[in-house]
Order: sequence, then C-alpha cells, then structure tokens
Amino acid sequence: MNNRAAIMYGTRDVRVEERAVPEPGPGEVLVEIRSVGVCGSDVHYYEEGRIGSFVVEEPMILGHESMGTVVELGNEATKHAVGDRVTLEPGVPDGTCRECRAGRYNLCPNVRFFATPPIDGAFANYVAIHEDFAFSLPDNLSDDAGALMEPLSVGIWACRKAGVRAGDHVLVTGAGPIGLVSAQVALAQGATEVTVTDVAPERLEIARKMGATRTMNVAEEPLDEAGIEADALIECSGNERALGDGIRSVRPAGTAVVVGMGPNEETSIPLAFVQTREVWVTGTFRYANTYPAAIELAATGKVDLDALVTSRFDLDHAAEALQAGRKDAANVKPMVMPGS
Amino acid sequence: MNNRAAIMYGTRDVRVEERAVPEPGPGEVLVEIRSVGVCGSDVHYYEEGRIGSFVVEEPMILGHESMGTVVELGNEATKHAVGDRVTLEPGVPDGTCRECRAGRYNLCPNVRFFATPPIDGAFANYVAIHEDFAFSLPDNLSDDAGALMEPLSVGIWACRKAGVRAGDHVLVTGAGPIGLVSAQVALAQGATEVTVTDVAPERLEIARKMGATRTMNVAEEPLDEAGIEADALIECSGNERALGDGIRSVRPAGTAVVVGMGPNEETSIPLAFVQTREVWVTGTFRYANTYPAAIELAATGKVDLDALVTSRFDLDHAAEALQAGRKDAANVKPMVMPGS
Amino acid sequence: MNNRAAIMYGTRDVRVEERAVPEPGPGEVLVEIRSVGVCGSDVHYYEEGRIGSFVVEEPMILGHESMGTVVELGNEATKHAVGDRVTLEPGVPDGTCRECRAGRYNLCPNVRFFATPPIDGAFANYVAIHEDFAFSLPDNLSDDAGALMEPLSVGIWACRKAGVRAGDHVLVTGAGPIGLVSAQVALAQGATEVTVTDVAPERLEIARKMGATRTMNVAEEPLDEAGIEADALIECSGNERALGDGIRSVRPAGTAVVVGMGPNEETSIPLAFVQTREVWVTGTFRYANTYPAAIELAATGKVDLDALVTSRFDLDHAAEALQAGRKDAANVKPMVMPGS
Amino acid sequence: MNNRAAIMYGTRDVRVEERAVPEPGPGEVLVEIRSVGVCGSDVHYYEEGRIGSFVVEEPMILGHESMGTVVELGNEATKHAVGDRVTLEPGVPDGTCRECRAGRYNLCPNVRFFATPPIDGAFANYVAIHEDFAFSLPDNLSDDAGALMEPLSVGIWACRKAGVRAGDHVLVTGAGPIGLVSAQVALAQGATEVTVTDVAPERLEIARKMGATRTMNVAEEPLDEAGIEADALIECSGNERALGDGIRSVRPAGTAVVVGMGPNEETSIPLAFVQTREVWVTGTFRYANTYPAAIELAATGKVDLDALVTSRFDLDHAAEALQAGRKDAANVKPMVMPGS
Repeated sequence: MNNRAAIMYGTRDVRVEERAVPEPGPGEVLVEIRSVGVCGSDVHYYEEGRIGSFVVEEPMILGHESMGTVVELGNEATKHAVGDRVTLEPGVPDGTCRECRAGRYNLCPNVRFFATPPIDGAFANYVAIHEDFAFSLPDNLSDDAGALMEPLSVGIWACRKAGVRAGDHVLVTGAGPIGLVSAQVALAQGATEVTVTDVAPERLEIARKMGATRTMNVAEEPLDEAGIEADALIECSGNERALGDGIRSVRPAGTAVVVGMGPNEETSIPLAFVQTREVWVTGTFRYANTYPAAIELAATGKVDLDALVTSRFDLDHAAEALQAGRKDAANVKPMVMPGS
Repeated sequence: MNNRAAIMYGTRDVRVEERAVPEPGPGEVLVEIRSVGVCGSDVHYYEEGRIGSFVVEEPMILGHESMGTVVELGNEATKHAVGDRVTLEPGVPDGTCRECRAGRYNLCPNVRFFATPPIDGAFANYVAIHEDFAFSLPDNLSDDAGALMEPLSVGIWACRKAGVRAGDHVLVTGAGPIGLVSAQVALAQGATEVTVTDVAPERLEIARKMGATRTMNVAEEPLDEAGIEADALIECSGNERALGDGIRSVRPAGTAVVVGMGPNEETSIPLAFVQTREVWVTGTFRYANTYPAAIELAATGKVDLDALVTSRFDLDHAAEALQAGRKDAANVKPMVMPGS
Repeated sequence: MNNRAAIMYGTRDVRVEERAVPEPGPGEVLVEIRSVGVCGSDVHYYEEGRIGSFVVEEPMILGHESMGTVVELGNEATKHAVGDRVTLEPGVPDGTCRECRAGRYNLCPNVRFFATPPIDGAFANYVAIHEDFAFSLPDNLSDDAGALMEPLSVGIWACRKAGVRAGDHVLVTGAGPIGLVSAQVALAQGATEVTVTDVAPERLEIARKMGATRTMNVAEEPLDEAGIEADALIECSGNERALGDGIRSVRPAGTAVVVGMGPNEETSIPLAFVQTREVWVTGTFRYANTYPAAIELAATGKVDLDALVTSRFDLDHAAEALQAGRKDAANVKPMVMPGS
Repeated sequence: MNNRAAIMYGTRDVRVEERAVPEPGPGEVLVEIRSVGVCGSDVHYYEEGRIGSFVVEEPMILGHESMGTVVELGNEATKHAVGDRVTLEPGVPDGTCRECRAGRYNLCPNVRFFATPPIDGAFANYVAIHEDFAFSLPDNLSDDAGALMEPLSVGIWACRKAGVRAGDHVLVTGAGPIGLVSAQVALAQGATEVTVTDVAPERLEIARKMGATRTMNVAEEPLDEAGIEADALIECSGNERALGDGIRSVRPAGTAVVVGMGPNEETSIPLAFVQTREVWVTGTFRYANTYPAAIELAATGKVDLDALVTSRFDLDHAAEALQAGRKDAANVKPMVMPGS
C-alpha cells in the first residue's frame, strides 16, 4: 500500500508526496479514500493560508468531504467490515466536555477536524478514523454522493436551526454548494416556496433544476424589493448586503440562519428590524448528529447530490481542483479522486 | 336561492329539508357549498347521537370538511370576492380567551365548530362563515381537495406536534383518512421511513400508493415484533393495543402523538416504558394555523388529496354517505356534493 | 368627573388641559388612573417627537405604565366590578390577524398601544380600555407596583426569550429600569449568577440592592476582560459596545436578547462569534401573555417593584417627570400620579 | 487504608465487610466517602432484590447519593486536587452512543450507574470515579447537602422537562424526598403557586416549611375537587390515582412529568383528557447536565437540602437506615456516614 497525498506547504503551494499509511488505532478503521469534494474552506486555506484564527503553520493535507472503502480494522473496531463503503464525518469530538455532554459536539473545543490546522484531511489514499465517524453507504449511492454527505450535513443542520416544516417559505441567499443543498433540504423538509438568490446566472440555473420555486439574480433585481416574507432565511453567501436584505425578508418571529462566513469579525445587521419583528438570528458551525439523516435523504432520492458534481480531478491535479470554482462560477463542486 | 340541508334528527335519522339561506353577518361571507367530506365524527354522531360530552339534542346539520364558492359578502367583509373558491376552516374561536391569546385557538373553550352540537355543519347548499376562516383555493386544486384541507390540517397538526423533520422514521398506526394524510405529511416533511399499520389490507394498499415505505397488517404480523424504532408515532386508530405497541416502538426521547380517539376516558399505556425512555406523549385536538400550509402542500403536489376520495353522493344520499365506510373498509373518504 | 390630561403638543411641549371623559365602549371599562410610570420611550417622544417611524403628528397623551380604579363599566363588560384596582396592559391587538392567531399578539400590525402615535396614553385622570386588558391587583401591591407591571412584563418577556432556568448565569447590560427588572426576573427564574453592567455607579448600587450577584462599571472595567460566560445576555442599554461585548460573553449555543433600542437601523455585531458559537440573537418588542405572571411575581415578593420608584410628580409636573431621569441617573423611575 | 462496605447479599441481607480499596484508573479519582443518602431505589433493592428488569444477582454495594474527599488521583486525572470535597454524579455513560451524542446521556444504554446491578454503589469508605463525574463543592455546603445533589438533580431534571418558568403554577403529587426537592426547584425557577399533595401529614408539614404555597392531604380532600389548574404536574408518588387526578389538573397544553415509578408496566391514564387538552406527558429517567446547576442552587440558598435530612447512621447500621423511612413517614431522608 502506497499512500500518496496532496499536501499544502503554503499558500498556493500544494505538492503530491508519499506519506506513511496511517496505522488505525483502537476503535479506528483504515479507509482507502475514493472521492473527496472541494470545499470553499479548502480553497480559502489554499489561497490565504488561514481562516480566522486557524493558521496553516505546518504542511497539511486538505479535504474533508470524503468517502472510501474500509481496508483494515484497528483493535476493538467492530462496526464495519473490510470492504464496507463508508462516508467519513470529518470531526471527532472528545465526547466528554460540556458541549459534548449537552449534545452540541460540533462546538467541542477539542474536536479534531479534517483539514483544520493542524489536523490532516483526506486528499490522500488512506485515512484512519474512529469507526463511530465512518457511516456505511447503501449501494444505490455513488461515491461522489457519499463524499457529499458532508456539505449535505451543513444544509440539514441549517434547516434544523431554521425549523423548516411543511408549508414554510424559505429564502436561501447564495447558490454555491451549501446554498444548493440547503435549498434541497428545505424542499425535502416540506418547504413549499424556496427562493434562491445569487449573482451568477449559471448557479441560479442549477438551483432551478434542483427544485427552487423561485430564483433571483440580485445583481439585477434587488432582494429588498421582491416582496418576500420568509419563515426562514438561510444565508449562504457570506455577503453583508445579502444578509441584511435577507433578514429584512423574514416574517415576524421567523428565523435567520447565517451559514456563509463573511470577511470580518464584525458585521452590520438590521438590528432594529430584528428587534421589532422579534426575528431569531443564529449561525451554524459545522453540524451534529446529521449523518444518518443525510444518508437516508440521499438514498431515498429526496435530495440529489450527484447533480452538484461539476468536475473531477485526480490527486496530481488537486491544485487545479482547488482553483476550478474560481475560474468558472458554474463549477460549483469539483471532486478529487485520490485513487484514480 | 334555495338552501337544502341534510339534517340529523336523531341516531340514524337524517332528513333533507329546506332551510332559510343564512344571512352573512359583519365580516362574514356566504358560501355555496360544493363538496363536503364525511368524517368519522359525522359517522359517530349519526350512529350514537353523541361524542363524549357533546350530545346532539336538537336537529343539527353534519359535515365539517367543506369548500364552496363565495356568493355574497356581509358588511365589512373585504378579503374575498364573489366567485372565489374557498375552503372553510370549520372552527371559529373567540379570539380573546387565554388559549386564543397564547396561539392555541383550537383549545378555545368558546369555539364554534361546524357539526359539533349545537352548531350546524356543511351538508347544505349555503353556509355563512367569517371571512378569516375562508381560504382561497388555487385553480389547480379540485373541489374535493379543497374540502379535504380539513383532514389534511389534522395530519399537519399531528406532524407538527411530532416535530417530524428530514430523515425521521415515523410510525402511523391506523390507515383511515387521518392516518393516510398523516403519513403523506410526514413524507412531505422529510421522513425517510414511514410505516403504516392497519388490519384492512385495502387500506394498507392505499397507504402504499401514497408513499408509505412499509405497511404492516397487524392482524397478521404483531407490531411489537417488527423491530421498529421510530422518532415519532402518530396513532390514528383509536385502538389501545395499537397505542401500546406504538409507544413501545418509539426511540428514546421520541414523541407519540395520539390522534385517534378511543372509546373510554381512561386508557392503559406502557407508562414504565415512557418513563425509562423519556418518551413524550400528547394528543391533538383539531388544529391551529394550518390552512395556509395545507393549501400549499396540496397545490404543490406534496400531498395528494384526490387519491383519498373513494365515493361521491348527492345531498339526498347523505345518509348513505355516512354509512359507506362501514360497508367497505376501502371506502375511506366518501364525499357529499350538496349542489349536485 | 373632570378629566385633566398632560398632552404633548410637540417636542418639549406638554400642556395640562381638560379633555372629555372617555365613554367606555362595549366590553370596555373606564378607569380612574392613579399611578403612571415614566418610560424611556415617553422621554424619547418628548425630546425628539418620534421613535423611528412613529411620529407624533397630533397632540398626544403620553404614559403607558399605568394602573387605577374601575369607575364605570361599558356594555357587556363583566370581568370587573366598579372599585376594582386594575393594572392596564397598554396594547390591545386585533385578535384576528396571523400574528394574533399564532399567539404573538405583541407583533399584531393593528395593535392600538398607549402613547404610540396616534393613540393616547395614560397621563390623564380617566382612560377607557377593553376589560380583557385590565387585570385586577391584589391588595398587597401598591399603586406604583401596579403601574410597573408594564416594565416588569418587558423583563419577563426578555427572560422567556432567554429561556432562563435554574442555575443559569445571566448578563444584563444596562441598569436602567428595564435592566433592573430583567435582573430581578432572571433571579426569580432561578439564575444563580446575575451580572449587571452600567456606567453609572448609582444605578449599579440599585442593582446590587435588587440582588445582582455582580455589578461592573464598564466605564472603568472592560466587560470583554471580565471572563464572563453567560447562558444568556439581556441587553438593556441600547449601546453598541455593550451589545458586542455582551454577545462575546455568551456561552456556546447561548442566547442574546436585545431589549435596548440603539440609535440606528443598522448595528454592528460580532457575527463571526455568533456563528462559530451558534449563539441565538433576538430582540423583544413589548410582550405577550405576561400580565398574570407579572402580578403574581410581584404579589409573592419574588420581584420588588416599589424599590424602582425614585420620585413622584402630579399631573401638572408631568414635564418635570419626563426630564427627571435626565438630571439624575439615580432617578430611574419617576412616577406621575394624575389624581394627586 | 481500610475499605469497609455495606454489601447486599440478598433481600434484607446487608453485611458490612472489608473490600479492597479501589485503584483509580486513568482519569479517575479515588474518593473517601463521607455522606450517602438513602434513596427509595436502595430500599426497593433491599426489600425486593430487583427493580423491573434490574436484578441483584451478585453481592452489590447500595447507595448512589454520595459525596466525599478526593484522596488519590489516577493517571491523567487533572481536574481535582487531593483534599477536594466532591459530590459524585453516579452514572458514567459511554460518551459515544447515539443518545450520548444527542446530549441525552442519561439514556445511554451502556451507562454504569452506582448501585444498579451489577455496579457497586457508595455505602463504602472508598469509591473510584472518573474525574468528570466528581464535582467540587463550595465550602458553605454541608457534606449532606453535597450527597443530596443527586436527588436535587432529579428535581431539576423534572422542572426542566416541565419547563417551569416565572409565574407558573405547579402541582407536585407526593411529598417524599423527590417531591420535596421538585417543589423547591419549581419555586426557585419562579413558580408562584406550588401545591404539594400526600397522604402523610408529617410530609406535608415539611413541604410547607420548604415553601409550598398550598398542601393537600389527599386522603381527606380529593385532588379532583380542588379546582387546581396547573401549568405543570410533577408526579412523584408512583400512585395511579395521583397521576390521573394530577393530569386532570393540568391546563390546556400544559405538561405532566411522571417521576414516580408505579408498580406495573402498564398504567391507566386519562388519555381522552390528554387529547382534548393537548397535554404533554413524559417521564424522567435520572438526569443529564444537572450537577453544576444543582450545586449553585444549593450554594446560593435557593434550595435547602439540609432540611431534607432526618436521620444519620454509620455504616454498621446501613440496614437500619434502609428501613428508617418505612417505620416513620416523617423520616424522609436517612443518611449513611461511612466514615463515622
């Protein structure tokens, strides 16, 4: 077994090198990675070398939307068999802190999360992970779909925070991968009107194909004149204007879930509106307890993850994969296939 | 305008007679009724003359699942135009009591509810109702679908109480009209496994057509051996054994929503199980704030109400309509068309 | 019966004049006002002539924290007897709109609220109000306490939104009347640590007397260095820095309730913190369904409203009452006694 | 160090014997036990040898309401110092199962809980426990209060499930230790009316001393004629009639939390009432995330645990301690002091 990996040495410096095959520890499984999605955070690390206080100081392997095949079991690992196709939940919390005990393990201060410094990610042939964070995939799901359980989890988590239920009207600002899966989950959770906004017509076209009942190019048509009154906003653009206009589109006592990260620590919001309408505003940080639902939503066809995939790269072209979305707004989800 | 009505004079005594056309009061609209569903409670009044403490002491018009066309506006009625097709929410609360102020208007002690003694229902040519409780129907919905917003509301309310969300597993015990719409709403709200139980194979066949992922004839296959662990139970049979086996099928901290009314005030439940699993048990009494969602769910095709309709009767055959379900378990939803 | 009233004609122009005694309509009671608290919003109208989009365009009576004695019953008014001491909930919603039906009557777009243009308030000898919004007071409560059920309601509402429960740590920024009642309610609802911040030492002294477990003069000691990790923030200062530092003091998945209104439509908040901690941020607009709880909290001694009262004025000195707090930060709650 | 322990060999057969001092494992601390409360479950095991499916098949040490002093640290144990006074949360979950990940660690199927077969309890001189489940006690709390954090946790959990908030009316049926702490927590969480029922006048007397606003001897005065309409019922008697009458005392949409275990798997409840009132019924199984709140509630004087203590026994008289409550209804909480 050779373990090649695409390693980020610095900004815009990714090199494919040989690494030792990880040894699965107690309760862990060794997974041969087959498909990995490129996430905006990977691109951000690649371009800037950091996200907020997370700084890439040592060479690090990117990639955290991954799936593969179990090839070896560590001691005490009993949940999977060699040969199982599994998707990997990329963050392993400590299980004992206050946040974990309260069921908010995504907020565990000691979580070890793929491709978040200094933890390596999955742009590699082999990865070891605790068996509890590897989830078996049904046969009717593609490898790509398996990898994309991760962004789907982000969308599920956003819709849970938003409390979407049958008959709701949902506004999704930003038609990148997260906006697209969030719109799909909102529809799957019963939303009857799902408006998606963006400035790229290609992305709005994908949104329509995925079932959005209305799309708006906010470069041409201002959101705040659209007369939308949504039960929930799911902000996925990281754009301050989208956030402000989005919040002002929420009905009294509705919810605004901020998923997209903006460039600054501080952001201006229409607070007077939030107060007089008693809107609830919150953000999401990753997700918790979503993988079983994600797999079932995809397996039952309630969401379509394959439709997100727009290009594929082998490991040697990981750097190109990291720049593919920059070059073409329609290339919403490039995939890296380490084994190809 | 003649106003013929099917009036219940006593148990199994329904007579069609001429009544004065109601005068719409301030804020009310006069509706020419086109379609009315027969509900189990109508059948119960017809056969027993009472439901619990509600006793039919004076002649009363049955029917509360209704729609029609606005034909006249009372003073101050501004929300509808003559000619509008509307579905009628059959309970008008007082709007001022503690329950109403808290948003629980279905629990208003002063509600005036169609076909609940002594309030007349909709087996008639004309009905007057406050405009706020008449909801316009989109053109793509049939008259029958319009009438069936009422049982759909019951299903929506049950799924709200159950907190169904994407990826949930839901168990529906009882495949009558309420069980069938509850299963549909659960699917529309993202449930990925919906098991429906009954003892009538014809009804289970309908459940399968409506999307149930599993059906069980509990006359042949005991529920408590089925290995089901549901996030939510929606009990729609009124049967004590179904309730008990259903509750024992709920996962830790899951929810059991009891919609079906049993024959007694007191009912035995597996309380020790409820305690050690911390299951939440509640019941539903009608619904609140469901009609807009109901109309949209039907209009967007997320639920199919026409598939529920199994027979149609004119007003002169209302008594037959009230007995149709008794004669044939597959005749789940007979409709009365007062204008035909 | 003479009805004298302190009428605001324009900014800093309040005149005491005779007005017709209101005629109680159907379901209304006529109340002889005995005590009225001066609220910051009264002061704001007096000084600026407007609050946001609410502009005083016609002469208007200020005052909305009021109590008095029932002196006459309108037709159909049955809940009170002449002679009853009652506190007045100053906003009467329509009871039929979407917000009212959902139990959010404070967000009713058609609410008629005392001293909010163009509705008159309670700086007068007589006021008519629907009986449902007059609540009987137990004998052990003073007139002032009766009037102050209104700000107490604001505090209760804030603590409900904050979900305060036994053992919680609560941070209250701003020690004006709302901050002081919010701190008291938080303590009454089981908070074991309640930190109150302000820049006025006199106000912090009052907070300590009311049970705050910690007070901080943020003019001297920065909040963001205090090491506070609160389950809930209740922001009552309207100050952007207090809001920002307050939010950054909230624990993961905690809640920030913004009660104080700032000067601008848009406000900068630490959104990245909100996102990575999944903090919930909301605001309060008045309150709903709080009066019975308010009366009981005061009557059982769990909160002390009399301790808030710092000065008293007769109607002829209403203008002075409106400026009393400006002249002395320790004069947190001036009262107007129309009958004195 | 000698480790004497009161070991249950069979029903009504407890023997004090010498046992090896436990060796604290990684992350564990060794605690010298100073005070242990006698719980109804201890009594039940002593008398019956089992509780439901939990059967005492091997000799087992009883006692799970305990505190003591840290005397030794295992490897990697860093949270406590030798000499710390700590209270012990007696159930250690696995931290990885579905229930644990969802924050419901009290429902962990793999929990190891003191004095639940086959796990030993704390009627002993020394106990080893993971440091995360030992909580430091402030100096102003007595040893007994430290031990009684466990039943206090049960009361906190019940009040959380009940959603008690300021101004609520709470009904507590059963004035044993759990009913008494539940009443105290309800008061601490802002309840303004707390009615406690029992059939033992001595216990009702204690309830009054602890702040109950009303007590009822239901042997003399039937609960269903008392006109109580509670926001929440906390059932602590295990009595079917108390449960039924209690549920019928809950307001529409209120909550009934069943803490007391009855003798049977199945229990009759007024289900028709639950349905037409939409009451929420649930049970509690132990507690989760309560210890920090419990310690603060006691340390701030919001609840009084010392007032519960009615007798003390040394280890050699543990059997007497287990029978003390049977002989005298007023002896609500006997304590065992292993070191005395």
